[in-house]
Amino acid sequence: MTELNQRERPIWLDSDQRTVQVIDQRLLPHQYAVLDLVSVQDTVDAIQEMVVRGAPLIGVTGAYGVMLAAVEALAAKDPDKHFQQSCQRLAAARPTAVNLTWAVQRVTQKCALAKSAEDRVAYARSEADGIAAEEVDNCRAIGQHGAELIQAISRRKAGQTVNILTHCNAGWLACVEYGTATAPIYTSFDLGLDLHVWVDETRPLNQGARLTAWELGRYGISHSIITDNAGGHLMQHQMVDLVIVGTDRTTYTGDVANKIGTYLKALAAKDNDVPFYVALPSTTFDWKLTDGVAQIPIEERSADEVRYVQGSVNGRTERVLVSPESSPAVNLAFDVTPARLVTGFITERGICTANAAAILNLFPEKREL
Amino acid sequence: MTELNQRERPIWLDSDQRTVQVIDQRLLPHQYAVLDLVSVQDTVDAIQEMVVRGAPLIGVTGAYGVMLAAVEALAAKDPDKHFQQSCQRLAAARPTAVNLTWAVQRVTQKCALAKSAEDRVAYARSEADGIAAEEVDNCRAIGQHGAELIQAISRRKAGQTVNILTHCNAGWLACVEYGTATAPIYTSFDLGLDLHVWVDETRPLNQGARLTAWELGRYGISHSIITDNAGGHLMQHQMVDLVIVGTDRTTYTGDVANKIGTYLKALAAKDNDVPFYVALPSTTFDWKLTDGVAQIPIEERSADEVRYVQGSVNGRTERVLVSPESSPAVNLAFDVTPARLVTGFITERGICTANAAAILNLFPEKREL
Repeated sequence: MTELNQRERPIWLDSDQRTVQVIDQRLLPHQYAVLDLVSVQDTVDAIQEMVVRGAPLIGVTGAYGVMLAAVEALAAKDPDKHFQQSCQRLAAARPTAVNLTWAVQRVTQKCALAKSAEDRVAYARSEADGIAAEEVDNCRAIGQHGAELIQAISRRKAGQTVNILTHCNAGWLACVEYGTATAPIYTSFDLGLDLHVWVDETRPLNQGARLTAWELGRYGISHSIITDNAGGHLMQHQMVDLVIVGTDRTTYTGDVANKIGTYLKALAAKDNDVPFYVALPSTTFDWKLTDGVAQIPIEERSADEVRYVQGSVNGRTERVLVSPESSPAVNLAFDVTPARLVTGFITERGICTANAAAILNLFPEKREL
Repeated sequence: MTELNQRERPIWLDSDQRTVQVIDQRLLPHQYAVLDLVSVQDTVDAIQEMVVRGAPLIGVTGAYGVMLAAVEALAAKDPDKHFQQSCQRLAAARPTAVNLTWAVQRVTQKCALAKSAEDRVAYARSEADGIAAEEVDNCRAIGQHGAELIQAISRRKAGQTVNILTHCNAGWLACVEYGTATAPIYTSFDLGLDLHVWVDETRPLNQGARLTAWELGRYGISHSIITDNAGGHLMQHQMVDLVIVGTDRTTYTGDVANKIGTYLKALAAKDNDVPFYVALPSTTFDWKLTDGVAQIPIEERSADEVRYVQGSVNGRTERVLVSPESSPAVNLAFDVTPARLVTGFITERGICTANAAAILNLFPEKREL
């Protein structure tokens, strides 16, 4: 394993200020590799092929992609047209995470203020840097607010181990630093609380078993990988005190799109009176949609992500076919957990219940949208 | 792929009448291999290592194991003691499926009538053959009763495709012929109904993706493999008309132990008004336990079944490590779905609701137990 970049970030700008470098998350935990993104095409590919993934990180990658679009436009016959088309391609790279369109739009709007094509590059870089910095601040604040929940459970249990279940990876690999769902875990671990994390492996791409387990292990946090099937049983037997997940898009009415299978965990939490929290920066709220199940677009990905599993054999990365050669598979990447199953949201401004009034009370400036 | 044994059974006696032959289900669907069981140790290993699996098949394998115990006893210093100890080992090979202890006890009791150690072998063989034949009859009857449910849905949908979701493998590979959960599917397919089956891959050992998909594909039944995470989303979007699963042990009060993850599907079915049926022969009822969640023993298996995934690479069987080398995993093999989430049971005597009165009404001879 190569030493990790000192910043423990999944994305950064190289010293030339025109190369975006990202950790190739397809290869973790068995290989640590950094990929250079030097074009819009590189960026779209990295987002679609899940070199980078996680709503906040997709947003930040899209934002830096706008900078690469501005660079490419310098050499184009019609720079403005090329820039616009590139930004549209970036925004459409994946459909579910709202952060992507939000971030691309924000940087594009900023670029409209630029007085020249050269200026546009600097505007885009500065705005993308700003978004990345804000996401770090957001995640740090989410950690502080969420840690209060965990501290309260720890006090109630007289300091006994607090068991937290999480699905997929909403760690720093999915964000810029800290993570969303993991931020309260890191913060309360730093405070010295006794924690154990149940890590859903999160089929088909195993972001839990591969990425969350790797993050937690590096930080020294006690954890156990479980199949996605196991959470219900654990909750039935009082082995989970709290569920925290991230989200790819949450309506301002409280419906939560997240990695497929989240809805099943929310049902089990409800059935067993386990608190079910969703940690998110306000950039992941969709301020327009009202009905998540009906309105949030759910990405369908390649069937081979289900039929094959990638892992390591003696240090070599291999992909094994699990199913019969001729059996088809269907691969829906997300599901929507209705607000009625969500105990609350952990945001950078604090914790609120899962309904429009409470959410807009924390973010009153969004009432006009 | 080798031609399958003509009988499409996972277990049979070789012509010597003293060798039990089983399909090695660890290797399907990529390799078809038959394993000879010639000793009690072979039989215990085959059950524990899941060469054979599925409650009815574990029972039948245990029954034939008693015959092998009787054969071994012929050469033992103290034949009766050796026989008894062997039967205890067989009954304890796996804890959750009630069919195993039931079948071993039934054959052992029959053997008590034998007048000699030689006689005991014949008694055991005959009783094991009888159990196997009864399981075939049970599954055929389950198919007929269950097909009526599917026919009713097909009529209501004016002949449009009936979408059935199943978890794990409760097919003929788990039984002797027909299967339990699959029997209504095979029977209604034979009747010409338009069907499609959503096959949960069923981590960690992928009995759905490997075994159920293979069975259905061989029979020509339309199916799609999905991750265990996907069923909730499909039910939310009216893409599942009926859930049918098998069970390893069901209390006579209606609580259902089945492959881990079943409980999550039952919760989703309830939340979306999708009928959730459990297909079982009466041999899988536990006539003593009243509280499944509290009382049914749940087997914990090796963590490496979660950490590694087996599949095929260019026709070669490989096991890949998915998780970080140092991350632990926990592997609970079953969970319990409370009766309140079960729409009904499909048994060899017909369909009933999930409570003691209805179950005992179908099996009045069990009232005394």
